[in-house]
Amino acid sequence: MADLDAQQKIALINENLQEVLRPDIIENAIIKENRPLVIYWGTATTGKPHCGYFVPMIKIAQFLRAGCRVKILLADIHGFLDNLKAPIELVKFRAEYYQYAIKALLKAVGVSLDKLEFVLGSSYQLTAEYTMDLFRLSSVVTEHDAKKAGAEVVKQVENATLSGLIYPLMQSLDEQFLEVDAQFGGVDQRKIFTLATEVLPKIGYKERAHLMNPMVPGLAGGKMSASDPDSKIDILDTADLVRKKIRKAYAAAQTLEGNGMISFVEYVLLPVSSLQSSDGEMRFEVEQGEGGKEPIVYSDIHTLKEDYKADRLTPQLLKAAVTKALVDILTPIQAEFQASPEWQEVEKKAYPPAEPAKKKKTPKDKGSRYPGAVKANPDGSVDGRGKETVEVGSGAEEAMGRLEVNGVK
Amino acid sequence: MADLDAQQKIALINENLQEVLRPDIIENAIIKENRPLVIYWGTATTGKPHCGYFVPMIKIAQFLRAGCRVKILLADIHGFLDNLKAPIELVKFRAEYYQYAIKALLKAVGVSLDKLEFVLGSSYQLTAEYTMDLFRLSSVVTEHDAKKAGAEVVKQVENATLSGLIYPLMQSLDEQFLEVDAQFGGVDQRKIFTLATEVLPKIGYKERAHLMNPMVPGLAGGKMSASDPDSKIDILDTADLVRKKIRKAYAAAQTLEGNGMISFVEYVLLPVSSLQSSDGEMRFEVEQGEGGKEPIVYSDIHTLKEDYKADRLTPQLLKAAVTKALVDILTPIQAEFQASPEWQEVEKKAYPPAEPAKKKKTPKDKGSRYPGAVKANPDGSVDGRGKETVEVGSGAEEAMGRLEVNGVK
Repeated sequence: MADLDAQQKIALINENLQEVLRPDIIENAIIKENRPLVIYWGTATTGKPHCGYFVPMIKIAQFLRAGCRVKILLADIHGFLDNLKAPIELVKFRAEYYQYAIKALLKAVGVSLDKLEFVLGSSYQLTAEYTMDLFRLSSVVTEHDAKKAGAEVVKQVENATLSGLIYPLMQSLDEQFLEVDAQFGGVDQRKIFTLATEVLPKIGYKERAHLMNPMVPGLAGGKMSASDPDSKIDILDTADLVRKKIRKAYAAAQTLEGNGMISFVEYVLLPVSSLQSSDGEMRFEVEQGEGGKEPIVYSDIHTLKEDYKADRLTPQLLKAAVTKALVDILTPIQAEFQASPEWQEVEKKAYPPAEPAKKKKTPKDKGSRYPGAVKANPDGSVDGRGKETVEVGSGAEEAMGRLEVNGVK
Repeated sequence: MADLDAQQKIALINENLQEVLRPDIIENAIIKENRPLVIYWGTATTGKPHCGYFVPMIKIAQFLRAGCRVKILLADIHGFLDNLKAPIELVKFRAEYYQYAIKALLKAVGVSLDKLEFVLGSSYQLTAEYTMDLFRLSSVVTEHDAKKAGAEVVKQVENATLSGLIYPLMQSLDEQFLEVDAQFGGVDQRKIFTLATEVLPKIGYKERAHLMNPMVPGLAGGKMSASDPDSKIDILDTADLVRKKIRKAYAAAQTLEGNGMISFVEYVLLPVSSLQSSDGEMRFEVEQGEGGKEPIVYSDIHTLKEDYKADRLTPQLLKAAVTKALVDILTPIQAEFQASPEWQEVEKKAYPPAEPAKKKKTPKDKGSRYPGAVKANPDGSVDGRGKETVEVGSGAEEAMGRLEVNGVK
C-alpha cells in the first residue's frame, strides 16, 4: 500500500465510523500541523480477547496505516476492580496477554507497530497529579451528569456502585494524561465522550476529538451469550473449532439486520483485505460450493449485501467464506503463539484452566470500555458468600502488588 | 486536675456526647490494652474558625485530658475543592491558620498538646495507596449508600457534584490511613460514620468506634446567618465586639430550645471550667447586676437551666456572664496572636482583607466536616462567569502547588 496523502489519511481514519466529534481537531493535526494524530483506545483487561475485538482492532490498524500514533490503554485497575474476587496475580498477566494478542493481530493484518504504544492504567492513574485532577473533576461534574454519561456502558442496576460514576471521569481525564488529540471507542461511549468534551475545559484542559465505531452484532449473531462457549471465537481456536462455531452461528437468509456474518465482512474482512493488498483494494472471495464454479469476488460491501438480500449469496456460502478468511487471519496469530513460550506462559497464568471458562464474564460489545463494570448483586451485596475480607484482599498494598504498582509514593 | 483512672477517662471521653458507636472498642483500648485511645477529628480548612468551633474543640480538650492521642485532620484538599475559584496560595495558609487557632485555644483551655497531632489531608490523600483504596471502596459502595451517607452534611441540591458522594468514602478511609481507634464528629456525621463501620471491613480493614457530639445552636442563636457579620464571633474579636455581638444575639427568656447562650455554657464554659480547675469541678459565675448582690455560682447545667426557665436567670444576666467567661478564654488566645508575627502573617495571607468578609461562606454547624461542600449553582454551573479555565487553574500541578504537595510521585 503506497504512502497516503493527508486527505487519504483522513478518509482512512474515518472509514466505517458512525460518528466523529470535532473533526476539525483531526484535520488540524494532519493537514495544518502536518504531524501524526495521537489517538487512544481503552480496554479493561478482563476476559480473554476474542474475535469481537477484531472490530476495534481493525480501526486501530487503519489509524496506524494512516500514520497515527495509537496509545492503547490497558485499564488494569478497572480490570482489577471489575472482579475483586479474582485470584491474586491475575491482573498483570491479563494485561500482558492483551498486549500479546493485540500485537499479533495487528501484525497479522500487516500494519507497522512502530507508532503503537501500550499504557497500563496503573502506570499513571494512581499518581498524585491524576488523583488531584480526579478530585477537581468530581467537584465540577454533577452526579446527574456522571450517571447519564455512563448510562450505556455501566449496567443501570438499582445497586450500582459508585465506581460506575467515577469511571466516566477517569475516561475523560485519561485523554489529558495520555496526551492525545482524540479518543476512539464504540458509539456506546458517546455520552462519556460528550462528557469529556464538556468537563475537561472546566478544569483547564483542552477538548479532544472523538471517533466512534458503530455497534455491530457479534460474529455469532443473536445467539451471543457469555454462558455458551460457542458464542465467542477465541483467537486461539483451531480452524476446526472456528468452522464448527460459525456453522452454528445465527445468520438468517436474506436478512442483514443483526447479521454478525455480514458485519464481520464489512468491519473486519474487507478492511483487512485492503490493508493487506498492495493497491488498497478490498477483496472478499466466496467459493460457490463443489460444482466447480468460479468464486465470486466482492470488492465492496454493498454488492455483497445486495446479493445476500436476494439470496444469491446464501448463509451457507457466506459462512464458509467467512470461516476461510478468518482462519487465514488467525493462522499467523496462532503460529506466533506456538512460537512464543512467554505468551503461552502468560496465557496459562492469565486464564488458568481451573477456572471454568463458561463462568467468565467477557465483554459483550466490541470496543466497550467497561465490560460488565457493575458486578454487585441486586441485593446490594458484592457477592453473597460473606467473606469479602478474604476475597478483596487486606489492603491497598496487596491490591497494588497484584497490579505490580510500586514506587508511586 | 489529678490523674484519671480508666473509668474516669472513659467518662470524660463520653461527657456531653449524644451517641457512641462501638464503645467496646474504646473500653478495650483503655481498660484491656491500657494504652491511649487514638481519635481523629476532621475539618475542611475553609472559613475562619469562629467560636462555634469551641464546641468540638472542648471535646478534643477533654480527649487530650483523658490521655487520648488526638489527630486533627486538616482537610486541605476538601478546602481547595470547596472553592476552586479562591485565589492561589490561600489553601495552605488556611491550614496553617487553623493550626495556630486550634493550638492557641487548647492552650487557653489548659490541656497539654503533647498527644495532639495535625495531619494535612494532602499529605496522604493523593498517595497511590489511598487512591487505590478509594477505587476499591467505590467498587463495593453503592451510589445509593454513598448518597444516603452524605445526606445530612452535603447539600441535597439537584445538581450536587460527584464529590459529595466521594467524600463519605474518603472520610471512611481516613480512619484507616490515620490509624485511629475512633472518629469524632457532630451527630450530623452519623450516616457517614455508619457507612464507615459497614464498608471498611469490606475492603479488609477494621471497624472503628464513633463519638458524636449533639448539634447545638450557635452562640448567636437563631439569627445565625453567613451574610450577617455579627452572627459569628471570631476568636480575634475584641472584648467590645464580643459584648456587642452577644448583646444582639437571640436568646428568648425562659426558653432553652434553640438557645445558643445556654448551649455555650453547657458545651463550652462549664467543661472548660472543669478542665481549668484543680479539682475538676465545674463553675459558672453570674454577676447579679450593680446592686451589690453576690454572684450566683452554677456548678452544673441543670440548676442553671431550671433558673433560666423560671426566669430567675434572665437573658440579660446570662449574656453578661457568657461575655465575661468567653472574653476570659479569648484573652490569652489574642495575646498569643499579638505576640506571634508568624500567626499574624498567616492570618493576612489566609484571609486577605480585600475579600469582603460578608461574602465568605463559613461553617454553619460546629464540628461539621464538610461545610458548604456543594457550591454548584442551582442551574448546574459552578459559577456563571464563564471563565472556569482561569478560575480553577490550568491543571493538577498548579492545584498541588497551591496545597504545597510535591514529591508524591
